[in-house]
Amino acid sequence: MDQLSATFAALADPTRRAIIARLTAGEATVNELAAPFDMSLPAVSKHLKVLERAGLISRGRNAQWRPCKLEAGPLKEVADWAERYRQFWEGSFDRLDNYLKEIQQKETSNDA
Amino acid sequence: MDQLSATFAALADPTRRAIIARLTAGEATVNELAAPFDMSLPAVSKHLKVLERAGLISRGRNAQWRPCKLEAGPLKEVADWAERYRQFWEGSFDRLDNYLKEIQQKETSNDA
Repeated sequence: MDQLSATFAALADPTRRAIIARLTAGEATVNELAAPFDMSLPAVSKHLKVLERAGLISRGRNAQWRPCKLEAGPLKEVADWAERYRQFWEGSFDRLDNYLKEIQQKETSNDA
Repeated sequence: MDQLSATFAALADPTRRAIIARLTAGEATVNELAAPFDMSLPAVSKHLKVLERAGLISRGRNAQWRPCKLEAGPLKEVADWAERYRQFWEGSFDRLDNYLKEIQQKETSNDA
């Protein structure tokens, strides 16, 4: 699997996205990450493995704690990928905007 | 599955991302989309179904052609989601930058 596909697949889960959001506040252990989710440690560990394989997090070397750290690279890749389509969606909102203005103008001229 | 998870799952495939890129140039039929991929029509149709379920494309009503059209909404959602982390990755690049400057300064003062 290519890097970007692995990143998107890892992000296709609300728990994993919540873990990423939590890690912007700083490194955290598996226990700290599991606390707000009402999930078993093995379930959280499984999510962390998916995130780690996608390069979205890295783990410390300390065997007992292995704190998780967010890695910026893949997130930037996603933003860069989506950003390429900005022109497209801004265009399509512009078209909607023009359409709404057109309707409004017609209604105004009907009123007159 | 929540909307954003469905979008990320649909984007976790290079062929589907290539189809999206192609559709920024305008609507296209399944045949037109299949042409550059050296893929069977059923394989392309399967990808289109995933994209359609995720709301990334819509299909025309004409039963024979059903042209595919890119929908901007979910792409904007992805960009907005990733954009929230900009501060994080810019921060982490800043930290790297500061670290490199620090090393350089040390080397400069050692030379002096």
